[in-house]
Amino acid sequence: MGERERALLLGIRSRVRRSSAVRVGIGDDAAVLALRPGEQVVVTTDFSLEDVHFRRAWHPPEAVGHKCLARGLSDIAAMGARPVAAFLSLAVPAQLTRPRAGKQSWVDRFYNGLLALADHFHVPLAGGDLAQSPGGAEAVAVVDIMVVGAIAAGKALLRSGARAGDLLYVTGSLGGAAAELRALGKTPARFKHVTTASTEHPHLYPKPRLATGRALVARQLATAAIDISDGLSVDLQHLCEESGLRAQIDAAQLPVHPNATLQDALHGGDDYELLFTAPASARIPRSLGGVPVHCIGRMLRHRAGQPQMVMVEDGHRGQLETAGWQHF
Amino acid sequence: MGERERALLLGIRSRVRRSSAVRVGIGDDAAVLALRPGEQVVVTTDFSLEDVHFRRAWHPPEAVGHKCLARGLSDIAAMGARPVAAFLSLAVPAQLTRPRAGKQSWVDRFYNGLLALADHFHVPLAGGDLAQSPGGAEAVAVVDIMVVGAIAAGKALLRSGARAGDLLYVTGSLGGAAAELRALGKTPARFKHVTTASTEHPHLYPKPRLATGRALVARQLATAAIDISDGLSVDLQHLCEESGLRAQIDAAQLPVHPNATLQDALHGGDDYELLFTAPASARIPRSLGGVPVHCIGRMLRHRAGQPQMVMVEDGHRGQLETAGWQHF
Repeated sequence: MGERERALLLGIRSRVRRSSAVRVGIGDDAAVLALRPGEQVVVTTDFSLEDVHFRRAWHPPEAVGHKCLARGLSDIAAMGARPVAAFLSLAVPAQLTRPRAGKQSWVDRFYNGLLALADHFHVPLAGGDLAQSPGGAEAVAVVDIMVVGAIAAGKALLRSGARAGDLLYVTGSLGGAAAELRALGKTPARFKHVTTASTEHPHLYPKPRLATGRALVARQLATAAIDISDGLSVDLQHLCEESGLRAQIDAAQLPVHPNATLQDALHGGDDYELLFTAPASARIPRSLGGVPVHCIGRMLRHRAGQPQMVMVEDGHRGQLETAGWQHF
Repeated sequence: MGERERALLLGIRSRVRRSSAVRVGIGDDAAVLALRPGEQVVVTTDFSLEDVHFRRAWHPPEAVGHKCLARGLSDIAAMGARPVAAFLSLAVPAQLTRPRAGKQSWVDRFYNGLLALADHFHVPLAGGDLAQSPGGAEAVAVVDIMVVGAIAAGKALLRSGARAGDLLYVTGSLGGAAAELRALGKTPARFKHVTTASTEHPHLYPKPRLATGRALVARQLATAAIDISDGLSVDLQHLCEESGLRAQIDAAQLPVHPNATLQDALHGGDDYELLFTAPASARIPRSLGGVPVHCIGRMLRHRAGQPQMVMVEDGHRGQLETAGWQHF
C-alpha cells in the first residue's frame, strides 16, 4: 500500500463506526470478527462496475456508494441473517480522489453515501482494499463490496427450500427501480442533487429488507427466499431450479410500483425486494419488518414438458420467460 | 446474473473441492460457513488489477490465478489463522472467456492456477461474483479475492503486539520476486510456459506461509506479525507504527535471495514472507512450518527525533527509508 492510499485509509478509518463485533478492523493484515455462540458465517460479494452497474454522468456518487452496499446487505437479508461487517475494495481513476471546484472528491462523496447506509444499519466497515484503476484516460471505477453476516446454525433461508404447494410472496413494490432508471437516462440533470437516501428513489437508493429477512427466520415463516435484484422472472427461475419445482404467478396480484409497467415489474431488475415461499397454512402478516408483503402465486410440482414458470393474466395462462439483465 | 455467467459459474461449481465448513456454497444469495466453537472470523480482501498487479502479455494466466489467491492466503497466514474459504470476484473482457486457437480460454487457465493453489491448501472456493469488464477494447481484467479464515478467540497475531527488546524475524528469502519480475520484463517469452507452481518462481508463484503462521500461534512464539508483500521496508514501518516502536535491522543478517540485490530485498516487494517479532528469551527454531527463519534485527523503544527505522551495514548505522510500491 502506498502513502497516498494509506492516508485515504486512515481518513476512512476515523469515520467508521465502532462495533464490538470487530475485534480488529482496518489497519492489520486482515480483520477479526467475533460472532455469537452457535452462529454461522454468511458471506456475499458483489461487483459494482462503472458503465455496467452505474454511470458517472448519471449517478450521484452518494447513490453509487449507497447502492453498492445495499446490494450486499440485500443478499444478507435474503438469507435471513444479520450483517456483522462490510469490506470495500475500491479502484478508482486518480482524479476521483481529488476535490473538484471546491467540492468534495467523488471518492469522498461515494463514502458519504456508503457510510450513511452502513450507519443506518449499524454495519461497521472493517476493511477492504484501495487501488488506482488501470487504463489511463479510459479508466473506470470498480467497486467490490463484501458483507459478512451471521445466523444461528442451520437457520439460513436458502433458495432450495421451497416445497410444492407453498405460496409465493414478495415484499414492497416491483418495477420502481426500472421506471426511475428510465427517467434518469432521459434527464440525468434532474437527479444530480439527489444525494441522500429516500424511498422515492428506488433505483438510486434501494433499501435492503434486513428486518423482513430476520423476521422470517425469527418467526420460522419461510421455506425459501431470494432477493430479486436480477428481476422477478430471473430470480424466480433460480428459486424454481434450486428447489426443483415450477411456479405460477398471478399478474393481478403483483404489487406494481405506481410509476412502473407490468414488464418493469417482471423483468426490470434492480428491485432489492425479497421473494419468499411459505406453506399455504402459514399466516403471513400483511407487513413484515415494516414492509408490505403480497402473495403473488404458488409453487408447483415439477412435471416433464411443462414450462418452469407460468403467469395467469386476465384469465389466460401463459409461459413466463426470463428477460432480466444478462452479462456476456 | 446472465445465462452465460450462470453457465460459467456452474462450470466452476463442479470443479470446486467440497468442504464440511461450507454449509452453503456457490448458487445461493450468500455462502454459509461453519466455524469451530470458540473461533473468530478472519477476513481479508485483495485486488489484483491488470496493468497494476499483472500484465496479460507477461504473466501466464495460471500465475495470475495462483497469485491473487496467494495474496489473500498470505494475509491469513500473517494473522496466524487457518483459511476456511475463498471468494472470487472476477471481471474480464468478454474475449477472455473464449477458447483461443484450440487452447483453453484465459479464464479457464486462470481458474486452473487458482484452484490448484486452493486444492493444495484445502481451501474451497465458496462464492464470488462474475462480470464483464467495462471499457470496450481497452477493458482490463479485475480480480478481487477474499479469504475468510478462522482463529481461536483472541489469538490472532497483530501488527500492534511488538514490544521494545523483541527480536525481528523473517521467513524464507527476500528479493527473489523483484529479481524474477526484472527478468520477466526483459524476456517475457521465457516465462510463457511456466504454468505450474514452483518455488523457483517467487514472483509468479509465491507460496503463502500458512504453516509458519499457525505454528507461531500454536507455540505462542510471536508477539506481532505482518506479511511483507509491500516490501520489507514498507511493512516494517507499518509494524513500527502500529506497535509504537522503532526498529533496527542488520543488513548482514538479511536472507537475500541468490538472484537478488540488497535493494531488492529491502524494497522489492511481492515477497509473500512473514515478518514477526518475538521476545529475546523465546527460542525460535531455524525452520518453522518447513520454511527457514532468520533473525534480522530488533525492536526499540520510541524516542523523539530518532528515525523510525535504522539499518546497520558494514559497521555503519543509517536511516532506513521506505521505497516500496506506491499507488496514486
